[in-house]
Amino acid sequence: MLLYERVAEQLREQIASGALRAGERLPSIRQLAQGHGVSTATAVQACLQLEREGVAQARPRSGYFVRAAAPRLPAARPPRRRAPGTVSNPVLQDVLDMLARRDVLPLHSATPAPALLPQAALGASLSRCLRRQPAAALDYAPPQGLPGLRRLIAQRYAQLGAAVAPDEIVITAGAMEAISLALRTLAEPGDVVLVESPTYHGILQAIASLRLKVLEVPNLPGRGIDVARLESLLAQHCVRAAVLVPNFNNPLGSLTDDAAKQALLDSCARHGTVVIEDDIYGELAWSGQRPSPLRRWDRRGNVISCGSFSKILAPGLRVGWLAGAGWTEALLRAKYFSTVGNASLPQLALEDYLRRHDLERHLRRLRRTLAENVQRLHEAVARHWPAATRACEPQGGLSLWLQLPPGGDGYGLFEAALAEGIGTSPGVLFSSRGDYADCLRLSCGLPWSETLDRALRRLGRLAAQRLR
Amino acid sequence: MLLYERVAEQLREQIASGALRAGERLPSIRQLAQGHGVSTATAVQACLQLEREGVAQARPRSGYFVRAAAPRLPAARPPRRRAPGTVSNPVLQDVLDMLARRDVLPLHSATPAPALLPQAALGASLSRCLRRQPAAALDYAPPQGLPGLRRLIAQRYAQLGAAVAPDEIVITAGAMEAISLALRTLAEPGDVVLVESPTYHGILQAIASLRLKVLEVPNLPGRGIDVARLESLLAQHCVRAAVLVPNFNNPLGSLTDDAAKQALLDSCARHGTVVIEDDIYGELAWSGQRPSPLRRWDRRGNVISCGSFSKILAPGLRVGWLAGAGWTEALLRAKYFSTVGNASLPQLALEDYLRRHDLERHLRRLRRTLAENVQRLHEAVARHWPAATRACEPQGGLSLWLQLPPGGDGYGLFEAALAEGIGTSPGVLFSSRGDYADCLRLSCGLPWSETLDRALRRLGRLAAQRLR
Repeated sequence: MLLYERVAEQLREQIASGALRAGERLPSIRQLAQGHGVSTATAVQACLQLEREGVAQARPRSGYFVRAAAPRLPAARPPRRRAPGTVSNPVLQDVLDMLARRDVLPLHSATPAPALLPQAALGASLSRCLRRQPAAALDYAPPQGLPGLRRLIAQRYAQLGAAVAPDEIVITAGAMEAISLALRTLAEPGDVVLVESPTYHGILQAIASLRLKVLEVPNLPGRGIDVARLESLLAQHCVRAAVLVPNFNNPLGSLTDDAAKQALLDSCARHGTVVIEDDIYGELAWSGQRPSPLRRWDRRGNVISCGSFSKILAPGLRVGWLAGAGWTEALLRAKYFSTVGNASLPQLALEDYLRRHDLERHLRRLRRTLAENVQRLHEAVARHWPAATRACEPQGGLSLWLQLPPGGDGYGLFEAALAEGIGTSPGVLFSSRGDYADCLRLSCGLPWSETLDRALRRLGRLAAQRLR
Repeated sequence: MLLYERVAEQLREQIASGALRAGERLPSIRQLAQGHGVSTATAVQACLQLEREGVAQARPRSGYFVRAAAPRLPAARPPRRRAPGTVSNPVLQDVLDMLARRDVLPLHSATPAPALLPQAALGASLSRCLRRQPAAALDYAPPQGLPGLRRLIAQRYAQLGAAVAPDEIVITAGAMEAISLALRTLAEPGDVVLVESPTYHGILQAIASLRLKVLEVPNLPGRGIDVARLESLLAQHCVRAAVLVPNFNNPLGSLTDDAAKQALLDSCARHGTVVIEDDIYGELAWSGQRPSPLRRWDRRGNVISCGSFSKILAPGLRVGWLAGAGWTEALLRAKYFSTVGNASLPQLALEDYLRRHDLERHLRRLRRTLAENVQRLHEAVARHWPAATRACEPQGGLSLWLQLPPGGDGYGLFEAALAEGIGTSPGVLFSSRGDYADCLRLSCGLPWSETLDRALRRLGRLAAQRLR
């Protein structure tokens, strides 16, 4: 291949891949010559070649542009390479593809819709911090996070009866990073980690990608973690850590009561199992009574507690935390060598928001709305879905978990709904063993609307069709 | 211990840890009762007890407050727990402690000072995006990152002669997350990873925390990666991946030339070693001639290229990227199960900034300033430091690497300087084998000032003292 042909070939690839679009300027002759290490004459020749092909067009004194009517070029994709840590799960890839789409009704997303969050107040906090601390907003924050924000989080624990020192708090990119850091810090490949079943698929994936083994303890609708079963599993296996969601398990929305929480802490401590508590839904109790985090009863420093502002204030700020007990130093190092630290402005803005506003007041309204939403979801399912569909009775959180009638196919329903622009989460996601194939998770974070009502009718019809 | 004593004990702990400070309100009686699961009478008793001890003080109708003159309580720290993945390195802990301090002259930080970055323009972009897209600023961005920003990054690669599709770009929390994700995705515990020596300590730590083995290939001041040695190492060992910094190695600032880049790509491809390219300093060439990324010559899809806006626009936004070649899907999953996605507003603002401003113009000014800074650093070292101190001649980047005269102790100098509020990076950080004990890295990202001049004199004097 001649030199100019090679340059032309790459420009074609860039147009085919969408890096350069119709009407956009090609790199300048100087850039092409320098970037490809060729003479400007060769770079000009490459552009002339694309002009002959009808792909590019010269404009006097401004260079070459991609033609609006350029022939469609086939995109060359790099062959997919296998990575050893990759968990093959086609369901998962479908779900990730769905997350990138903006044209899907997000009934899959266990997040409050933007309208339910204090957007104006948070926006004002972001603007204020930007105005008052422009340099701090753009510079690195300390790797552990802003001291003031960490102290506010420790104070919230104090209100809940849990002794957490500000020194123990590490700010993370959401609770997912907190859990992932805790797993990476505590466990070595081959170690066994206990989770609930069903549980959030992100936890299962984080465990699988670290080559850890997983053990599942039932979480029972309306009752929470099966403590007797937990004790017997811990007695039988050497379990390094347990990732538990006692407050409003995702997807069930079940609450583990105080006595069970204390019993499971005892079991874990007795068997040398470290508890990684995922408490992101704790603030979202329908009853308005915020249940205690496990940390409240932890006298042995055996609980790493993970939380986040994602589910109560703003997911897109990516601010969560962990309270690291005796592992704080190791966890902070893991954070530093993974993402260095969190973005600064979101931390500044959250601290500002929390100092100026009554979080409790916002939470009261949010809980009420979510409880109403889940009630209406229940009613819609009862009215429009096949008669034998069973719905959980969540006590908090952001999800409604449904079991289809015998023969129901959650993944099939997910696919059919997605084809019509309705997002849902198929049950198989929530187990490492392929359980819950007949289940589906819906979000109760969307404000009630005609569109939502229509989507639920449509889902009911699709569910019924797939039973025949 | 009586119930009320337990509640009082925890309040004392919270005051001792700094979660509650003098003048701040204790949790309300209702919160205490609910959080600790006790009666309000018990909660009141706990507060009265603290009042008797002189720790708290009641204010009519507003509750209990920590007294300004409260006796200092001893803070109980959780005993430090050993985590299996922890790399014991006291130097490292000292460095992390330093990063949390705001009272240190940051000659340790390979980052341009805020004054060298387009703060006003970036601030305006942040404000504009917040005003125009308030909901998008607070909601999740797609896990892979904003499509428009990914396309701009692909276009920059196109200008450099490298074919990178926007589909391949994953936005990350800086280049550190990109490298960490690539290592986690490619390598399994026990695999061998090749790095340069010296190299950035974050890379060494990320490798160590994944229980990978490390192999070091020399990077030579003024010449770059020793390709012949690389070839012989790859021939002798089975090396899964190589993390390479051919453009302005940190800490040397050396540039590997185009012929060597092509030769090393050939070696790696021939031996089945995947290249993880760390190109964060590529834009910072003193000569103004931006060197090519390795991706320019990669025809086999064997290079994962990592970059960042941290070193050229704003470290605190935490926006970097990787171009994942055939591993993109696996890398995106790893990103999702680690931090879900990047914060939204920083991505929106960077896209806005890049569309409105001439990045190249900013870079020209930045490069000039950095080149001048390093020149002045050189002069100051020549004038004030022990005569036999040797300084590298960096060709770009943000660092100046110094070798002390025989008998020099980089770590000792680091400690002595830190005690006087001057941050530096001791040489031992930059090797996995304890090499470079007589070296020190200084940042050339600080604008020249009297303070800086004084600090360099002082460092010179401290270096001389430690030789005797």
